[in-house]
Amino acid sequence: MSAVGLIGLGAMGLGMAQSLRRAGLAPQVFDLRRDVAEAFAREGGGTACASAAALAAACDVVISVVVNAVQTEALLFGGASGSSSSGVADAMRPGSVFVMCSTVDPRASVDFEARLAERGLLYLDAPISGGAAKAAAGQLTMMTAGRPEAYARCGAVLDAMAARVYRLGDRAGPGSRVKVINQLLAGVHIAAAAEAMALGLREGVDAAALYDVITHSAGSSWMFENRMPHVLDGDYTPRSAVDIFVKDLGLVLDMARGTNFPLPLASTAHQMFMQASSAGHGREDDAAVIKIFPGITLPEKKP
Amino acid sequence: MSAVGLIGLGAMGLGMAQSLRRAGLAPQVFDLRRDVAEAFAREGGGTACASAAALAAACDVVISVVVNAVQTEALLFGGASGSSSSGVADAMRPGSVFVMCSTVDPRASVDFEARLAERGLLYLDAPISGGAAKAAAGQLTMMTAGRPEAYARCGAVLDAMAARVYRLGDRAGPGSRVKVINQLLAGVHIAAAAEAMALGLREGVDAAALYDVITHSAGSSWMFENRMPHVLDGDYTPRSAVDIFVKDLGLVLDMARGTNFPLPLASTAHQMFMQASSAGHGREDDAAVIKIFPGITLPEKKP
Repeated sequence: MSAVGLIGLGAMGLGMAQSLRRAGLAPQVFDLRRDVAEAFAREGGGTACASAAALAAACDVVISVVVNAVQTEALLFGGASGSSSSGVADAMRPGSVFVMCSTVDPRASVDFEARLAERGLLYLDAPISGGAAKAAAGQLTMMTAGRPEAYARCGAVLDAMAARVYRLGDRAGPGSRVKVINQLLAGVHIAAAAEAMALGLREGVDAAALYDVITHSAGSSWMFENRMPHVLDGDYTPRSAVDIFVKDLGLVLDMARGTNFPLPLASTAHQMFMQASSAGHGREDDAAVIKIFPGITLPEKKP
Repeated sequence: MSAVGLIGLGAMGLGMAQSLRRAGLAPQVFDLRRDVAEAFAREGGGTACASAAALAAACDVVISVVVNAVQTEALLFGGASGSSSSGVADAMRPGSVFVMCSTVDPRASVDFEARLAERGLLYLDAPISGGAAKAAAGQLTMMTAGRPEAYARCGAVLDAMAARVYRLGDRAGPGSRVKVINQLLAGVHIAAAAEAMALGLREGVDAAALYDVITHSAGSSWMFENRMPHVLDGDYTPRSAVDIFVKDLGLVLDMARGTNFPLPLASTAHQMFMQASSAGHGREDDAAVIKIFPGITLPEKKP
């Protein structure tokens, strides 16, 4: 059985570590917030590591659930903002595999694979979808691509975290490309849900009734169903923040710009999230994109 | 038991008539295509009427499933394009109810109710959602509003056609408002599905795999799941046409313009459908909005 480590105990990473534990894989974990890792370890069936390098040196499978490509780059190869520390690539055992679960530019993912291959290390392009609840339940969707040897090294690890593991290619790239396209839809759907709910409020429609009807009609989407309760509750505590979609729709547009490909809806939705961020809502829940609409009164938070 | 009639045996109306028949309500039906109404009647449990006025004179509940407000106006009050015929409002029995299932400007629906009330006739604002398959199964969603007397007159008729009958107000208007908002989402989601699938093709992603991943991820929508198989199959036989969304997103924008309310995504999606229509795809399936994207090769129809 492989020794498994997971770096980045955010909303997604923590749930994934719990799923690994439930599958009997006793993961080693690391997070910059040391107390979060130690709290996880205290629950039993896992170990908190003192550093990412220590984790990497002890594991055959290193799962990375950090925020973006810049953090992944720093984690792998060091040199983050004035730091002189080396990255986990220097600490990983030959033949071990790095499982990259972040949403990144597909070109960055291709680059990570190539640089790790030069060091005799394996790599899996493995972005995830499903949200924190599915992460905790081991029911994520994983959009993966990589060499057969990389999959072989992962053994049962991916299935412990995901209900569906899509294998989209035998080199890095397709996993991240599909994830970026998923983010196009996710971002447009959140912004469209906000636009529809805002129009309903403007027209004097009962917001709770509108939610009920739409979620049972052809206008529904995963995001409408998942995010609009935040608006109905007036609760913009960030499950996922406005600024995440400023970033992710930016990735979508960057990818398409590589071939001069037009994206009328993604570019419009990106502007909406940027408008919300510039107005000071960047760290609120992404449903706060509805706050860009003028002339409406949003439901208030219940006491 | 009320005598029930249904006018307009299109994809939706025919299925609704079948659901009424299955419920034992033996509907009287009328369609301008006489053979369609007669074929329905020959299957038993229903009658084909020679005219809409004959149907109206014989029924307590008159269900209208015509295309738009202009057709509804002509049906109710006559005077369509040079015709000297009077409308069904002149033929309806006092106290009977007209059930308006089309997607129309909410102001038109309010107007219909008022003009019928002057004649002692009842009215239900009752747009529908769900598609032809759910219409045939009696599993539609109905977004209704109207006077309690109008509902009382309908008896079990609505439940025979719909899995869910939302009662959104005691005067006409809210049903059509919610339906228009549903069409905002439906239209944006079809255009977004096309944009995402087009980007995937541009990026060399396998289209069938992309469909499979997205429908199991947070980027999914009812429309993505329902319409993108048409693209994968290269089959643009119209289940619902591009020009329907030119009309329906136009209604969305008209409604919002009434209060100077901005709709960045709906207006962008409307432009996309108009671009598809102007390019000659107006009568194709609405998934043909993907044909506005240049530089990609769409899947071809299987022989």
